[in-house]
Amino acid sequence: MTVDPRLSINQATIKYADLAAALRVTAEAGVQAIGLWREPVAEVGLATAASMLTDSGLRFTTHCRGGFFTMPEGPARRASIDDNRVAIEEAATLAAAGAPGSTAILVLVAGGLPEGSRDLVGARERVRDAIGELVPDAAAAGVTLAIEPLHPMYVSDRAVVSTLGQALDIAADFDASVVGATVDTFHVFWDPDVLPQIARAGREGRIATYQVCDWRTPLPADVLLSRHYPGDGVIDFASLTEAVEATGYSGDIEVEIFNQDIWDTDPLTVVERTAAAFGTSVSMHLRRP
Amino acid sequence: MTVDPRLSINQATIKYADLAAALRVTAEAGVQAIGLWREPVAEVGLATAASMLTDSGLRFTTHCRGGFFTMPEGPARRASIDDNRVAIEEAATLAAAGAPGSTAILVLVAGGLPEGSRDLVGARERVRDAIGELVPDAAAAGVTLAIEPLHPMYVSDRAVVSTLGQALDIAADFDASVVGATVDTFHVFWDPDVLPQIARAGREGRIATYQVCDWRTPLPADVLLSRHYPGDGVIDFASLTEAVEATGYSGDIEVEIFNQDIWDTDPLTVVERTAAAFGTSVSMHLRRP
Repeated sequence: MTVDPRLSINQATIKYADLAAALRVTAEAGVQAIGLWREPVAEVGLATAASMLTDSGLRFTTHCRGGFFTMPEGPARRASIDDNRVAIEEAATLAAAGAPGSTAILVLVAGGLPEGSRDLVGARERVRDAIGELVPDAAAAGVTLAIEPLHPMYVSDRAVVSTLGQALDIAADFDASVVGATVDTFHVFWDPDVLPQIARAGREGRIATYQVCDWRTPLPADVLLSRHYPGDGVIDFASLTEAVEATGYSGDIEVEIFNQDIWDTDPLTVVERTAAAFGTSVSMHLRRP
Repeated sequence: MTVDPRLSINQATIKYADLAAALRVTAEAGVQAIGLWREPVAEVGLATAASMLTDSGLRFTTHCRGGFFTMPEGPARRASIDDNRVAIEEAATLAAAGAPGSTAILVLVAGGLPEGSRDLVGARERVRDAIGELVPDAAAAGVTLAIEPLHPMYVSDRAVVSTLGQALDIAADFDASVVGATVDTFHVFWDPDVLPQIARAGREGRIATYQVCDWRTPLPADVLLSRHYPGDGVIDFASLTEAVEATGYSGDIEVEIFNQDIWDTDPLTVVERTAAAFGTSVSMHLRRP
């Protein structure tokens, strides 16, 4: 089976593989691109990670992740902004180290309500403010900040940005080359407005990255781990993928799955199965060159 | 402590109480109104239930629940429509049996994706079609159908209607005296568009009922049971309640909680605690007469 050339493995899908193993099994399975997470990069150090990435021959698609800046002004907020600046530099370095076609994208998860707060509106304003602070750094580094709306079940503890429309409203204050959105099927499929918002994201030049995985019920006890291989759930990849493609998006497409059973599986097997699932559920909805 | 005169206990909050017990503890706690569920009404029969309700002296606020009509045409869909017609008659009978100020409202939960389907768009169209079929019956019975948007985490298995805006778009095809919306804080608080949509619902005369309970994480293993007493979570009852009140809504306000710990508690204690929670988290946001 030929692996789709636009498939990228997000490292979270094989969470227990260290960077060396993640790069190795991704390449070994015939996948051409990978999205990395900060922690396994930090384990080996950025310079070593960049060198390992170059050696792998893989394209680099996204760096996961920045954000978590809903707190009010104070030391914790300053620490978060500073840490996001480091993440921006990492994304730039890794994109430069990846194979041609790599993209310098930092995925941003907004963060939830600060402890003891009920003020979603205020938290959302602080997300916009934080992005405003980071834009000059991102622009200077050539990095696109990709605001990721998360499913509304995560609104209070993980991401106060819940819809693609909301992400685009925040992004609208900034240049499209610097601030875009992450379109992840798991997070947006339920939205009755998703197709018009994908079209809008395309018109506004904001689709930084497209990610696919599936939704199935019952949800597991830890709802963070409720993501599945494409095709194993109820998401209609046809309409969503065709809507993304119709905007002219031609970038890599990541599969990012948080799932304990998948994490407990041998990583090469997971990457191979991901490639197969992508082939049967997503590839046919992509424009052919 | 004085119980707020606008508080109504939704019977699901004391799920294990039969109709007699539910009516008794609600009145005993000094609450003036109750929303009933079909199953405990059916247990005693509609005529007996109506008579018990009259004897209780309580207002009747909603009948829970109709809906579940996303399936394609066929015997199952016909059975669902027929069953909804019965539920409409029940709502009318119970509203007539309740104390003055009772309202004939049937809450509608849309239903999820039919088995094996990924077609949310089609399922949503079938919801609109089903409501269209029921409107003449509801109008004749003097019953308002209250479309309830459910939190998007229930989209695939319980309700393909996920936002208040979406409910209002469906309702817009029909007369506002016959089709409205249920505004439940738990289901809508996350929505970045919720305040404008509440205002719109008011302008369009569509707020059939306002329900309050709270959201807290981590979610329990069964996410259906993740509802809490007002004040025990992160929902901002001030902004939501004030938005509902600003529309001129002056009806009863139900507390409907699905929560195993609460179900396992003595029902009189639960109703008293609900009244206290309502008093400290909701009452101060209501216009005073």
